[in-house]
Amino acid sequence: MLDICLLGTGGMLPLPYRALTSLMTRYNGSNILIDCGEGTQNQIRLQGWSFKPIDVICITHFHADHISGLPGLLLTMGNAERTEPLTMIGPSGLKKVVNSLRIIAPELPFEIKFIELEKEKETIEICGLKIEAFKVNHRVTCYGYSLVLNRAGKFEVDKAKALGLPVQYWSILQRGEKITYEGKEYDSSMVMGESRKGLKVTYCTDTRPMDSIIENAKNADLFICEGMYGEDEKITNAKEHKHMMMTEAASLAQKAKVKEMWLTHYSPATARPYEFADKIKSIFPNTVIAKDRMELELKFED
Amino acid sequence: MLDICLLGTGGMLPLPYRALTSLMTRYNGSNILIDCGEGTQNQIRLQGWSFKPIDVICITHFHADHISGLPGLLLTMGNAERTEPLTMIGPSGLKKVVNSLRIIAPELPFEIKFIELEKEKETIEICGLKIEAFKVNHRVTCYGYSLVLNRAGKFEVDKAKALGLPVQYWSILQRGEKITYEGKEYDSSMVMGESRKGLKVTYCTDTRPMDSIIENAKNADLFICEGMYGEDEKITNAKEHKHMMMTEAASLAQKAKVKEMWLTHYSPATARPYEFADKIKSIFPNTVIAKDRMELELKFED
Repeated sequence: MLDICLLGTGGMLPLPYRALTSLMTRYNGSNILIDCGEGTQNQIRLQGWSFKPIDVICITHFHADHISGLPGLLLTMGNAERTEPLTMIGPSGLKKVVNSLRIIAPELPFEIKFIELEKEKETIEICGLKIEAFKVNHRVTCYGYSLVLNRAGKFEVDKAKALGLPVQYWSILQRGEKITYEGKEYDSSMVMGESRKGLKVTYCTDTRPMDSIIENAKNADLFICEGMYGEDEKITNAKEHKHMMMTEAASLAQKAKVKEMWLTHYSPATARPYEFADKIKSIFPNTVIAKDRMELELKFED
Repeated sequence: MLDICLLGTGGMLPLPYRALTSLMTRYNGSNILIDCGEGTQNQIRLQGWSFKPIDVICITHFHADHISGLPGLLLTMGNAERTEPLTMIGPSGLKKVVNSLRIIAPELPFEIKFIELEKEKETIEICGLKIEAFKVNHRVTCYGYSLVLNRAGKFEVDKAKALGLPVQYWSILQRGEKITYEGKEYDSSMVMGESRKGLKVTYCTDTRPMDSIIENAKNADLFICEGMYGEDEKITNAKEHKHMMMTEAASLAQKAKVKEMWLTHYSPATARPYEFADKIKSIFPNTVIAKDRMELELKFED
């Protein structure tokens, strides 16, 4: 239903064995990418996913490890013969940053539409899902993103029959449209059951922990969160550079009651993040110490 | 003496199994890098070479596959605690392009000095060797580079003795300095034999073949040259995109009487460049179908 691939799990700089943190999702023919550091296009290629259907690129913030791969990716999308417009979402100043980087990628066969985020929280409906952007707390303006796929209730045949509506109108109401029949208006709420649980993926890096992250990741099926440092004594670095301890990420996951958390954005100095697994899982058991190109197919319940 | 590593051999876009074309050399404690596409810093790290001693970065031209890795590399050099100035050499407009890319790498602990090339040929003496930049023929202004290491003649003891010079003056003359002894001036030419064969490495991509390349690569110990296409029918593409056939590169190598040629900058569509080896070697036998991170230690003769 919603394909997820965490293309890389590194922070700060790319390593030969660990690419920079970036998330790609596929839903209904559209690919959405969040962050694009140096090497992201290689990870997409390794994964065997396509460049042409990338309809949206969200950028968390303008540090190089989250955007340095953009000019190369845009050119590769052009070489893949994309001509449809691309939407880019990111903090205020996005257009200026992207155009500045495009000094080495000036000619593209597609248009770029920019959505610059200004508020604490903004919701964009695009490609059949909702992208909820929420401001986090880093050294520069930075946003987390939730991808939310709502799910309508079931069509209730009994209700439709009770209203006396001919069958040919049923699918119209099921699609959420209104109809007029024998002078009377009908809408979907009259034939549909309660909306069912949808899907939600929350991606959150780089930031200190905040209550609003708990709010925004609430009940997510998958919470992808930075865990820059594992050793307790690194809390000073975490506070200074405005990053998170792995344990802090686990605490957020536990409070947000997410189903599963994937840790990412490890410090280059952390060669073996799985060494901290026990400590993190004692706070939030359903933690995965994610690796590059880990993937998941999220499906609606039942 | 002069360590050479061809960090990547790809053209146009990075592939998981083939990094973008870039050359790194080490001489006398200084590293010189030519070109820096996306992923170049990973190749340097894989090779185990250091970031801090990169004293010079030469850029052939401003297409993304030759410069897109620059912001990340500069930041990584900063993280490696480089504080000495870095010299960058490239076509006119270099400072503007680099500063535009630095929108995501604005703060560096070292200064960048720019040398912008204007003429057909320019020679820069730096880090104990000569960098000869020569204009080639691509869709945008593009330069090839030769790194030239001259070698002085032998000190001739008989000559020094015949001049009646006390031993303490010999090393001064050997260093190339002048002395005055008993009212008379002496210079190194009076005690040194004829200068000996030095070392020369010529790096040439992206371009159509030209006579001036033959002139500039003349007698090189190593000629690293693009060979974008192998199949004869690709000559139309080569002409249109201003690149070279592998056979054209071999022809240049043969005419320039170089010792050895390494082919590089293969088209992403060419998965097996070694398939063209026989054809190329029939023109220039000492051709190497180079692979990523191929290295060589060039030494003075005898």
